[in-house]
Amino acid sequence: MSTVISAKQVKELRDRTGAGMMDSKRALEETSGDLDAAVELLRVRLGDKALKMGGREATEGTVASYIHGNGKVGVLVEVDCNTDFVARNEDFMGFARDVALHIAASPTTRYVSEHEIPEADKQAELRVFEQQAADKPENVRAKIAEGKLRKWMEEVVLLHQPHVNGDKYEGKTIEQIRAELSGTTGENVVIRRFARFAVGA
Amino acid sequence: MSTVISAKQVKELRDRTGAGMMDSKRALEETSGDLDAAVELLRVRLGDKALKMGGREATEGTVASYIHGNGKVGVLVEVDCNTDFVARNEDFMGFARDVALHIAASPTTRYVSEHEIPEADKQAELRVFEQQAADKPENVRAKIAEGKLRKWMEEVVLLHQPHVNGDKYEGKTIEQIRAELSGTTGENVVIRRFARFAVGA
Repeated sequence: MSTVISAKQVKELRDRTGAGMMDSKRALEETSGDLDAAVELLRVRLGDKALKMGGREATEGTVASYIHGNGKVGVLVEVDCNTDFVARNEDFMGFARDVALHIAASPTTRYVSEHEIPEADKQAELRVFEQQAADKPENVRAKIAEGKLRKWMEEVVLLHQPHVNGDKYEGKTIEQIRAELSGTTGENVVIRRFARFAVGA
Repeated sequence: MSTVISAKQVKELRDRTGAGMMDSKRALEETSGDLDAAVELLRVRLGDKALKMGGREATEGTVASYIHGNGKVGVLVEVDCNTDFVARNEDFMGFARDVALHIAASPTTRYVSEHEIPEADKQAELRVFEQQAADKPENVRAKIAEGKLRKWMEEVVLLHQPHVNGDKYEGKTIEQIRAELSGTTGENVVIRRFARFAVGA
């Protein structure tokens, strides 16, 4: 039995620790929503670095865009960090540009993080996948449906996707690249939002 | 007494005639929502050019972006037309770029057209303006409130705004510039959507 963790709880924990979305959610799940316990867990798991960043909201950052050569697809993305110093850093700005490029090439992307998917939508998808697996043996049905859900989330959730430039990023997901940049810069790196316009879509 | 015209009616009339949002709405108001009569009215008023474009959906177009030099503000805009030929036209692409630049400089912009404002929001604004004018003589109150509403709409509605580059565009509004471009290209020119990201906002 896992506790249902609200977006508000995750945000509070992130604000306090500066930890990433998934780390925070997992910690809250493991502590059944106990915020203080989750902070302790993250301190142990991620080291005090996470805590050092605690309370520092990502309010600096940069906006990057990418327009496909023919002007039919355009992407705008905002990536935030803690200081203007990092916001002007070439690696940081390069990350923002590469995220924009990735989204341009990934038309199915709809959310930055899994967390943004409305719970009702996720449940609806899961129900469909469960029905699609209805002819499979009962003991594997749930597993198959979950596998399909994971696959679907990789299609719609930016952070779950391996960067489209697999050569440059060695098959790493956007979340992995983001976490590494957070490590090298010592700041929260948050892909805050994006817009993707395709003509005729 | 004016008839309440739905967004659906306006869209139908626009799809049939290719006329602009405001022209279509006005025509429907004047014909009490009679679609055929409104088409006739537009044929008379705008000439058969409007009708020639009728039924041609604006499904070609271009996506343009503008990033403020310091990367703190970014805008993405999609402008549609009827043919790829016009979509690649330098004037057309320049218009898209200039609209993006304008929005970057206009942080209050929230809607492309007046039509996108939820009716409830508009009524809420109007109520506030009416209360603000409560100390004015009764016979001018409505007029004052309407004036304030018009002013507010100029702040939030892109098409109502004079382009920020007043020298280049001689103080014309985005809608006037759009209409002229529609005239010179002979196609529907539709600012379909925009996104404006400002770091920390």
